[in-house]
Amino acid sequence: MALNKTLRPGLIQLRVLDLDQTLNFYKNILGLNEVCRTEDGRVCLKAYDEFDHHSVTLRLAEEPGFDYAAFKVDSEETLEKMAEAVEAFGYQTDVVPANTNQPGFGKRIGFTISTGHRLEIYADVELAPQIPETRNPNIWTEEPRGMRAQRLDHFLLYGPNIAEAERFCKEVLGMFVPEVCNTPDGKRLAAWVTSSNKPHDLAFVEYDKPGKMHHVGFLLQDWNDVGHAADIMAINHLKQDIGPTRHAITRGQTIYFWEPSGNRIEVYAGGYTAYPDNPQRVWDSEQLGRGLFYYEGEMIPSFLQIIT
Amino acid sequence: MALNKTLRPGLIQLRVLDLDQTLNFYKNILGLNEVCRTEDGRVCLKAYDEFDHHSVTLRLAEEPGFDYAAFKVDSEETLEKMAEAVEAFGYQTDVVPANTNQPGFGKRIGFTISTGHRLEIYADVELAPQIPETRNPNIWTEEPRGMRAQRLDHFLLYGPNIAEAERFCKEVLGMFVPEVCNTPDGKRLAAWVTSSNKPHDLAFVEYDKPGKMHHVGFLLQDWNDVGHAADIMAINHLKQDIGPTRHAITRGQTIYFWEPSGNRIEVYAGGYTAYPDNPQRVWDSEQLGRGLFYYEGEMIPSFLQIIT
Amino acid sequence: MALNKTLRPGLIQLRVLDLDQTLNFYKNILGLNEVCRTEDGRVCLKAYDEFDHHSVTLRLAEEPGFDYAAFKVDSEETLEKMAEAVEAFGYQTDVVPANTNQPGFGKRIGFTISTGHRLEIYADVELAPQIPETRNPNIWTEEPRGMRAQRLDHFLLYGPNIAEAERFCKEVLGMFVPEVCNTPDGKRLAAWVTSSNKPHDLAFVEYDKPGKMHHVGFLLQDWNDVGHAADIMAINHLKQDIGPTRHAITRGQTIYFWEPSGNRIEVYAGGYTAYPDNPQRVWDSEQLGRGLFYYEGEMIPSFLQIIT
Amino acid sequence: MALNKTLRPGLIQLRVLDLDQTLNFYKNILGLNEVCRTEDGRVCLKAYDEFDHHSVTLRLAEEPGFDYAAFKVDSEETLEKMAEAVEAFGYQTDVVPANTNQPGFGKRIGFTISTGHRLEIYADVELAPQIPETRNPNIWTEEPRGMRAQRLDHFLLYGPNIAEAERFCKEVLGMFVPEVCNTPDGKRLAAWVTSSNKPHDLAFVEYDKPGKMHHVGFLLQDWNDVGHAADIMAINHLKQDIGPTRHAITRGQTIYFWEPSGNRIEVYAGGYTAYPDNPQRVWDSEQLGRGLFYYEGEMIPSFLQIIT
Repeated sequence: MALNKTLRPGLIQLRVLDLDQTLNFYKNILGLNEVCRTEDGRVCLKAYDEFDHHSVTLRLAEEPGFDYAAFKVDSEETLEKMAEAVEAFGYQTDVVPANTNQPGFGKRIGFTISTGHRLEIYADVELAPQIPETRNPNIWTEEPRGMRAQRLDHFLLYGPNIAEAERFCKEVLGMFVPEVCNTPDGKRLAAWVTSSNKPHDLAFVEYDKPGKMHHVGFLLQDWNDVGHAADIMAINHLKQDIGPTRHAITRGQTIYFWEPSGNRIEVYAGGYTAYPDNPQRVWDSEQLGRGLFYYEGEMIPSFLQIIT
Repeated sequence: MALNKTLRPGLIQLRVLDLDQTLNFYKNILGLNEVCRTEDGRVCLKAYDEFDHHSVTLRLAEEPGFDYAAFKVDSEETLEKMAEAVEAFGYQTDVVPANTNQPGFGKRIGFTISTGHRLEIYADVELAPQIPETRNPNIWTEEPRGMRAQRLDHFLLYGPNIAEAERFCKEVLGMFVPEVCNTPDGKRLAAWVTSSNKPHDLAFVEYDKPGKMHHVGFLLQDWNDVGHAADIMAINHLKQDIGPTRHAITRGQTIYFWEPSGNRIEVYAGGYTAYPDNPQRVWDSEQLGRGLFYYEGEMIPSFLQIIT
Repeated sequence: MALNKTLRPGLIQLRVLDLDQTLNFYKNILGLNEVCRTEDGRVCLKAYDEFDHHSVTLRLAEEPGFDYAAFKVDSEETLEKMAEAVEAFGYQTDVVPANTNQPGFGKRIGFTISTGHRLEIYADVELAPQIPETRNPNIWTEEPRGMRAQRLDHFLLYGPNIAEAERFCKEVLGMFVPEVCNTPDGKRLAAWVTSSNKPHDLAFVEYDKPGKMHHVGFLLQDWNDVGHAADIMAINHLKQDIGPTRHAITRGQTIYFWEPSGNRIEVYAGGYTAYPDNPQRVWDSEQLGRGLFYYEGEMIPSFLQIIT
Repeated sequence: MALNKTLRPGLIQLRVLDLDQTLNFYKNILGLNEVCRTEDGRVCLKAYDEFDHHSVTLRLAEEPGFDYAAFKVDSEETLEKMAEAVEAFGYQTDVVPANTNQPGFGKRIGFTISTGHRLEIYADVELAPQIPETRNPNIWTEEPRGMRAQRLDHFLLYGPNIAEAERFCKEVLGMFVPEVCNTPDGKRLAAWVTSSNKPHDLAFVEYDKPGKMHHVGFLLQDWNDVGHAADIMAINHLKQDIGPTRHAITRGQTIYFWEPSGNRIEVYAGGYTAYPDNPQRVWDSEQLGRGLFYYEGEMIPSFLQIIT
C-alpha cells in the first residue's frame, strides 16, 4: 500500500575544497564509509547504519556548501504523483535519469524551491555493497569508527521566503512541521520540518540570500556519544563551533564544528518522538537563542555565520 | 493531506489486582501521571511526554493482563476507510461512541484479530489537561519522576495465527514489519510490527492460547535511564524479570520486571531508526534466544512465562 | 595506624548575598541537604553521599566569595604533628575549639597560606544526623535531587606565590600535585593538588590579589549527570559560565555556572585515577586554554573572571 | 615524605590455557596492550591508562587461575618497613631480585597469607615504553580499544581464614575495609579492602580451599562503557556470567564474563568515593545476594563457581 509518503533525506551533495584532508574527516573522524568514486572525481559515502547505496557525495569546488539534497519516497507511484504536485505547486521539474551523477540511484526528479535550493525526489536506489546484517544480525558488523555517525539526519537551509518552502514540504512532500519560530509581527523566521518521527529531517531559516546552507546533521546514539564526538573533535584539532549543548527546539543533544573544507557539521542525538497530530511548538523570535542553545540561554554569535 | 496512516499505539487497558499498590507503581515508580478516574473505578494515566488525554487505563480484575489496545490514526477519513478495510479483511467491527469507557476519546472502532486480541482504532482524542509546553517550551515542565517513562512504546501479544495478524497490520493498518523470526520449516514464530520509525509499535509471538499478553513497553531516553530504572526497580523491591540487557532484535536496551499486579513491564530505550523500505531482518528460531537477549546469548526461561 | 594523612577537603564556608534565593539553589537545584543553622544565622549543608556533619556553610555578607576551607586529617596525632609542621613551615596557627562556629566539628587549627587564603585542618567531626545507609545499604536512601551533587569535590583559589602554597600542600599536608602549568620562563602559573586518588582536591592559579576564589566544585556521577545538571541549570534560568565541556587537565567532564549570589559553581565528573608515583603532567601556559577547555581548544574569556 | 603507604594492586599473574586465543581476548577485546614477552614465554600487558611497565602477566598452564598479585608501595623505605612488618605478623618473606620474572620490576618481597595466596610488595618499577601523554596531554594517545579497560582495578580471592587476611591488609599493608559481610553468628564471610579511594583494591570470601580466585576486575569509565563492554562481549561470543548489573556493595556497575581460558573477568565502573574514616558498611549474609546483585535481588548461582 503506497502511502504517498516521503521517507527521509537520503542524499546530500556537498562542495569541499580538498579531497584528501576532507575525506580523512568524513571517513576516519565522522566515521562514514567510502562507497565509490564517480568518473568526475566525486566521492560517495554512507554511514554504517544506512542501507542505501550512499547518502553523502563530496564534490571538489572552489568553495564549500550545498549542491543539492534528495528525498527518498516510498514508491514509483508516489514519485510520479509528487512530480505532478511539484509542477502544480508552481516549481519547474527536471528528470535525472537513473545512474546519472549518483551511482546506484534510480530516476530523480529535481526542482528549485523558494529558498533557492535544489531538491530532488527519488524512489529507487540500490542497496550499498555493505549493509547492516539482516540474517540473525549483530548490532553492527564492524565497530563504529570515529564519532560513530549512524545516519545522515538532517540539514538546515537558509534562504528567502521560507513560509513558501514550508508550505511546499507539507502540501507536496507530505511532511509536517513540529516547531516554528515567528517574529513579533507574526512572520516565519524558522521552521523545523520532518517526514518521520524524528523532530526534523530538514529546517529552514529566513535569509535574504538564496541557496545557503547552515549545517548538515548526522545522527549519534545518545548524549554519551555526543561527548565522545567532542573528544574526537578535540583530539583531531577540529574547530569547535558550538556545544556540547542541548537544543530546546527538537530537544536534541548536539555539537557543531567545522570540517576541514569549512562546512559546518552537527552531530546530534535524542530529540522527542514527533507525531503529526501533536500540537506545534511555537517559538517567539526573542526566545530563539534559548530555543537553539538551551544551556547558554541566548543566541551564540558564531551560529549566525553562514557557509558561503 | 490524509496519509491513511496509523500513527501509534495510543491506549492500552490493563487488568490489575490492587489499585492502591499498583497505582503507586505506575505513578511513583514508573513515573506516569494520573489523569482521571472513570465512574466504574478505572484509572487513566499518561506519561509526561504524551499529549493525548491518556494512554494507560487500569481496571481492577481477578487476574492481570490485557483488555485491549487502541491505535490512533491520522484522520476521520482514515478511520472510516480503515473500518471498511477491517471488515473487508474479514473481521467484524463494532463502534464505541465518543467518550464511552475512555474519557476524552472520540469514536473508536473495535475488532478482534486472529490472535484473539481486541484492538481498536480512533482518530480523535482530547489533549490531556497537562501537556508538554508548546510556547517557547522547556524540555519538561516537572522533572520526570521514578523511572522517567516518556511514552507508552509497544506491547507484545501472544496468540494463534500471527501470520494473519501480521498481514492484517500491514494490509489494513498500513504498518510494516522490520523483523521476523521463523521456524526451520518456515513458519512465522514472531513478528515485530511498526507504524512509525521506531522498530516496533507492537509484536506478536505464535502461541496456542488466544489473547495473551507478554509485556507492555514504555520508552526511556537512553541506556543511562535503563540503568537508573534498574536502580529504581531494586530500591523499590520490584521483582526483576530480565536485564538490563540489549535486544539484538530492534537493538533496544531494556529491562523487564513485574509490577505489583503481575503484569510484565519493559522499560526500553534505543533501537534503530526503522524505515519501510529497508530490508527485513530475519531470525532463525534457534537464534531467537540470542536475538532477544544479546548479552546472555540464549533464551532466558523466565521470558517464556505468559501473563494469565 | 596513623598515616599522617590529609583525607579530603571537608568543609568550605562561602559568602552569599541572599539566603532564601541562594538556599533554594543549594538545596533544590544543586541538591544539598540543609543540616542546621547557627545562632548567627549561617546555614550548614551537606551532599547526600557525605557522612560528616556538613561540608558547606553559607554566611550572609555584602559580597560573595571564600571565607575559608578546612581539610580533615586522619587522626588527632596527625593533627598535632601537622600543626607543628605548619608553624615550622613559617605560618602562624590559631586554634578554633571544638563546636565553635561549625556545629559538630572538633578542634580546628587555622592558618593563612601564601595566597592569602585561610585554611584549617581538623581530625574530628560528628556524623551528620542523616548519613548514607551502612547496614545492608541501598545505593541511596532518598533519590538524589536537582543536579544530584554527591560530594564537595574541590575548589580553585587565586592568589600570589602559588609555588609556596603548592610546596606547603606537599610538605606539610602530605598532598601531591598531579598537574601543573608553567609560564615560558618556567614560573608556576597553576597547580592541581590532591590528597586522594582524585586528580584534584584543590587547585591554585597565580594572581596578584590575595584570597580570591575562582569556583567550588561538586562531584557528579558521570557525563550523563553533567548533561542532566545542564538541563537543571537551564530550566532554572541559572546563568551558565562554561560547558558542558571536558578538561584535558584532570580529564574531568564539567559545567560551570553562577549561583544566585555570584559564586561560580562547577559540577564535575570523571577524571583519571591519580597516584602520587605517576609522572606529573605539565602544561605550557600557551596551551592552558586547551588544557582547561579541551573542546573549545582555547581559553574562554569568562573563565578569567574572579569572584570579588 | 613517605606515607608508609600501599598505593595499589599493580600486578597480577594469571594462568591461561592457550596463548593465541587468550591474547586475542586481552588485547583486542578487553583492550590491553602487549608490552613484552619473557624468555619463558609469558606475556606482559598493560591497560592504556597505566604508567607502570605492565600490570598483567599471562602464563601458559594446565588450568586457569591466580599465580600471585603484587602491590606497589610508595617508597623503598616503606618496602623495607613493610617487609619487617610482614615477618612480625608471622608470615615468612622471600625476596625476588629486581628484573626477575617480571621485566621492569624492581625488588619484590613475597609472602603467603592465610587464604593461601601469594602476594608481593614492591616499590620500584620502570615506566612502560608507552605511557599516557604528560606534556600538554591529550585524554588518550590512541583511542581505547575493545572494552576500553582503563586499569587493573581489583581481584576477589577465596580461601580460609579471611579474618586474618583482612587484619593483615589493615595492620601491615595499611589498607582499610569499607565493607564486610558477616554470618548470623558474627563470622566474617566476605571483606572488601582498599588502599585507595576506590571501594576495593581486593576482596576476600571465606572458602575452605586455599588459593582460589573468583575474578579479576578492570576499570571502565562509566555505565555507558559497561553497556558497550557487554556489546563487545556479545559480538565476540564470550560467555556471559552475570550482568550488566549493579553491586550494592561498592555501588559499582558491572558485568562478569569468562575469557577463553576460563578466568572470570569483571569490567567495573562507578562505586562510591571511599575514605578510611567513613563508617564501615556491614552486610548480613542473608542479604549478600542482594548486596552483590542489586537488580536481581538475590544470589546468582553461577557466581558461586570458583576458578580451579
